[in-house]
Amino acid sequence: MKCINDIGEDALIARLLAQLPPAPLSLNVGPGDDCAVVPFSTTTWQLLKTDAIVEEVHFLSNEKMRRVGWKAIARVVSDFAAMGGAPQWFLVTLGIPSEASVNSLVDLYQGMADCLQKFGATMVGGETSRVESATGLVISIAATGTVKKKHLLLRSTARCDDLIFVTGQLGGSLAGRHLDIEPRLAEGQWLAQQHFATAMMDLSDGLAKDLPRLAKASSIGFVIDLDQIPRTPGRTVSHALQDGEDYELLFTVAPADAKRLMKKWQKFFPATKLTCIGRIVPSGQSMELSGGWDHFPSRKR
Amino acid sequence: MKCINDIGEDALIARLLAQLPPAPLSLNVGPGDDCAVVPFSTTTWQLLKTDAIVEEVHFLSNEKMRRVGWKAIARVVSDFAAMGGAPQWFLVTLGIPSEASVNSLVDLYQGMADCLQKFGATMVGGETSRVESATGLVISIAATGTVKKKHLLLRSTARCDDLIFVTGQLGGSLAGRHLDIEPRLAEGQWLAQQHFATAMMDLSDGLAKDLPRLAKASSIGFVIDLDQIPRTPGRTVSHALQDGEDYELLFTVAPADAKRLMKKWQKFFPATKLTCIGRIVPSGQSMELSGGWDHFPSRKR
Repeated sequence: MKCINDIGEDALIARLLAQLPPAPLSLNVGPGDDCAVVPFSTTTWQLLKTDAIVEEVHFLSNEKMRRVGWKAIARVVSDFAAMGGAPQWFLVTLGIPSEASVNSLVDLYQGMADCLQKFGATMVGGETSRVESATGLVISIAATGTVKKKHLLLRSTARCDDLIFVTGQLGGSLAGRHLDIEPRLAEGQWLAQQHFATAMMDLSDGLAKDLPRLAKASSIGFVIDLDQIPRTPGRTVSHALQDGEDYELLFTVAPADAKRLMKKWQKFFPATKLTCIGRIVPSGQSMELSGGWDHFPSRKR
Repeated sequence: MKCINDIGEDALIARLLAQLPPAPLSLNVGPGDDCAVVPFSTTTWQLLKTDAIVEEVHFLSNEKMRRVGWKAIARVVSDFAAMGGAPQWFLVTLGIPSEASVNSLVDLYQGMADCLQKFGATMVGGETSRVESATGLVISIAATGTVKKKHLLLRSTARCDDLIFVTGQLGGSLAGRHLDIEPRLAEGQWLAQQHFATAMMDLSDGLAKDLPRLAKASSIGFVIDLDQIPRTPGRTVSHALQDGEDYELLFTVAPADAKRLMKKWQKFFPATKLTCIGRIVPSGQSMELSGGWDHFPSRKR
């Protein structure tokens, strides 16, 4: 009997998706990008996203629940940012161990409300279910958003010679930073509206895992300068590559636009670092990156 | 420290919802009905739903996973049916114990695909996450649907003297029937389009739990004839009231329309039983029902 660890997360997902009937022609983007993209109006796509965080996997039992609530929502907002879109309606499903305290759940909801309010989104429904005590709290978020058709950014549209940029600083999530996610919503929307980015995604599993995903989706390769990767103070290059949960934006820009981008960026987002870390190349010339977060690391590696 | 069991599921949800900022005016229905209802177009609402099932709570570890996949989707389809709407786009988030077999997940996806295909819906994305072995598999479904504004059915709009109807037969879910849910999608849409139902919901936690919810949402009471409740063969009235997971439709009808409904129903849905079980009365004259499924039964009762 094959276990998940025998094949790894990406192979598992490919295998599962193969069970589904082909998507209808009306569908713009099926599984594989940060959000699903479905028809909404003549000018607008709807973005759909689901995500779950689990006690002792994504947060420790002794964390402040208000920060956990923030994180649960912020992860999803970051996915909308990565498509150039805006979050709108949220639903939450809680799997609750019966010995959970009412106050901890109230704190969780306050943290969710903090984040929803900051990013202009609304909670419109939810479900609760009991889970076994050994499970810990399960928080599953589903959300819709929108993006103007002319602003939609995918991870599959990077082109040869494009320059590769990241926002913020990478690494250090394991030291607690993962609870203070600041989704780059304004930055993502601006990049889309200004037509600077040719492809974009958010960094959830670490640059070493996510950049190869962008490259694979775009059928291209990449070369990056490891020393150029912006690092959280006190963190090594390995941390920056592999910790995961940075929730910064990773995007590509046509070389001719790079200077103009840097100049405008400093004016609009003086507090958000922007760094060029490398270049898109033909897939045969790509460098290799390994590591990054895999929920089910393959035993074959 | 107050635990969930000290206050019960409905009180917990009320307490959590109080943490959220008030819904914007653009919102038709906030938390509380089978689906959330948000603006879509001039003629149409969008319906949003999230739901989760957990191993050893909603299904046993030795169940056929294809049936579990069917159930995960069918529960949500039933919620769209209850609003008079149609399901459209689905997302799935799996929390997977690392020793889970690849084949069991492939079977799960096939079951989900069976149900999606039957009811004309499409899976457009998902996430996977590791959970601890003790947790068991967590399957969280999020979905969108649509309903014409003129056909939307809520649980809050029942009126005094309306007659109370249920589809199918109740009870027996615990004996395995819960995996063979047949959402009443065509029936729900027909009831909405024909304007027969004045209020509607689906039966997920048992008539004894759900009818009082409909009554409370509508600020009315009810009287039912326990002997009239249609029962799965071999099941008692208690089973029919309390087992839960029937996924039949519970709805109210103006007395003047009841005869016409019964006649037309037999023509359109000869295979689906339809039974009048009681009547809506002023809330002061309501009978009491107790029991039904509560994930966190209050110790006070």
